[in-house]
Amino acid sequence: MQLFHMNFDPLSRFVRLVLNEMGLAYELIDEKPHLRREDFLNLNPAGEVPVLLIDNIFPLVTPYSIIEYLEEGVVSAQQSLYPPNAMGRAEVRRLLGWFNQKFYHEVSQPFIFEMAQKRFLPPELGGGTPDMAILRAARANIGYHLEYIGWLSSRRAWLGGEVLSYADFVAAAHISVLDYFGEVPWENVPQAKLWYARMKSRPAMRSIFQDRVVGMAAASHYGDPDF
Amino acid sequence: MQLFHMNFDPLSRFVRLVLNEMGLAYELIDEKPHLRREDFLNLNPAGEVPVLLIDNIFPLVTPYSIIEYLEEGVVSAQQSLYPPNAMGRAEVRRLLGWFNQKFYHEVSQPFIFEMAQKRFLPPELGGGTPDMAILRAARANIGYHLEYIGWLSSRRAWLGGEVLSYADFVAAAHISVLDYFGEVPWENVPQAKLWYARMKSRPAMRSIFQDRVVGMAAASHYGDPDF
Repeated sequence: MQLFHMNFDPLSRFVRLVLNEMGLAYELIDEKPHLRREDFLNLNPAGEVPVLLIDNIFPLVTPYSIIEYLEEGVVSAQQSLYPPNAMGRAEVRRLLGWFNQKFYHEVSQPFIFEMAQKRFLPPELGGGTPDMAILRAARANIGYHLEYIGWLSSRRAWLGGEVLSYADFVAAAHISVLDYFGEVPWENVPQAKLWYARMKSRPAMRSIFQDRVVGMAAASHYGDPDF
Repeated sequence: MQLFHMNFDPLSRFVRLVLNEMGLAYELIDEKPHLRREDFLNLNPAGEVPVLLIDNIFPLVTPYSIIEYLEEGVVSAQQSLYPPNAMGRAEVRRLLGWFNQKFYHEVSQPFIFEMAQKRFLPPELGGGTPDMAILRAARANIGYHLEYIGWLSSRRAWLGGEVLSYADFVAAAHISVLDYFGEVPWENVPQAKLWYARMKSRPAMRSIFQDRVVGMAAASHYGDPDF
């Protein structure tokens, strides 16, 4: 399997974490979607990462399509990251939507674009200096999302229910990107911090803690489970 | 089952079409998400439609969570709207992402907000007259999406492959909303028009052709399969 991804894209990071946790081997291929490389557009006409290429020929597109394909035929029941009952799975899928759509549009996407991508883009593709009004709005949104994570983790063993699931990895994927920039107000929500400390100590998380943005150091606690 | 929906929200309309096609009975409940009704926020803290309430107690949130729940335990193999093989299902799930995320953000959401919702909102929630620059961009995007529908339907029996699937209903849900406003340039893409004529003649589509926007008539061909 080959994973076409982009560093600090939370959707790509989510799939990496899932493949790591399942113990599946894969090759990681850096893709810059804004270059609109023709071979990549043949894999995904939407021109977006992540894409998981199976057997060099079949591209799985969107995190949703990727995880359902893995669940349907690639992994064993022990490796599954869904709860065993239908209502539990429905709750995990709701949270996948919460993070990959709501959190993504309200926090991750504006934040990453302003902080990490804009500096490397030409002006005609929206390059330039960060827009402070957009960053302020994204920072306000992080606060309420972090409270929601704290609320969930104070009522359940894990974010999606009683077992570790995709809900934890999707939340950790988005949160870890913001945490690189030191933008998660951990001290305000101790329950969320306790949940993330447990996630950070998982081996599946190790490789993402080595990602770096050129010219921008990680927050000092970025990879440290005791933060 | 109770479906909390909003007229002309394409995500809600997608779920209605699916339930109609499966022949499942449900009660339709009008919800205005911007009112942030407390009972509705208890069902879905994201405050978004559609929500499918099962047995008066268990809310299914996001179209993704709804259809996977139906597939896992509610409908028979004959009623399933997925192809029978894993790769076929992956392709349909890719197209669900294409329409419910890409098409939604590039076309449906800006269009519906500017044309139908803005007139009924107070200024502090973004109400007012349509922004012509946003409408121009959405209109340009309709063109390339319609070509993609034509491209798919010229190579396959249905949009997602050889069987009628969620891919057809999700595309029809979004397209039918734009078609109400007369905003689909059908004459430019005959293959897309042929596909939509087949969809329009399905009984599952009938109820949505009765939806009306107050003070705005439907395009003359809106519900007519011979358009």
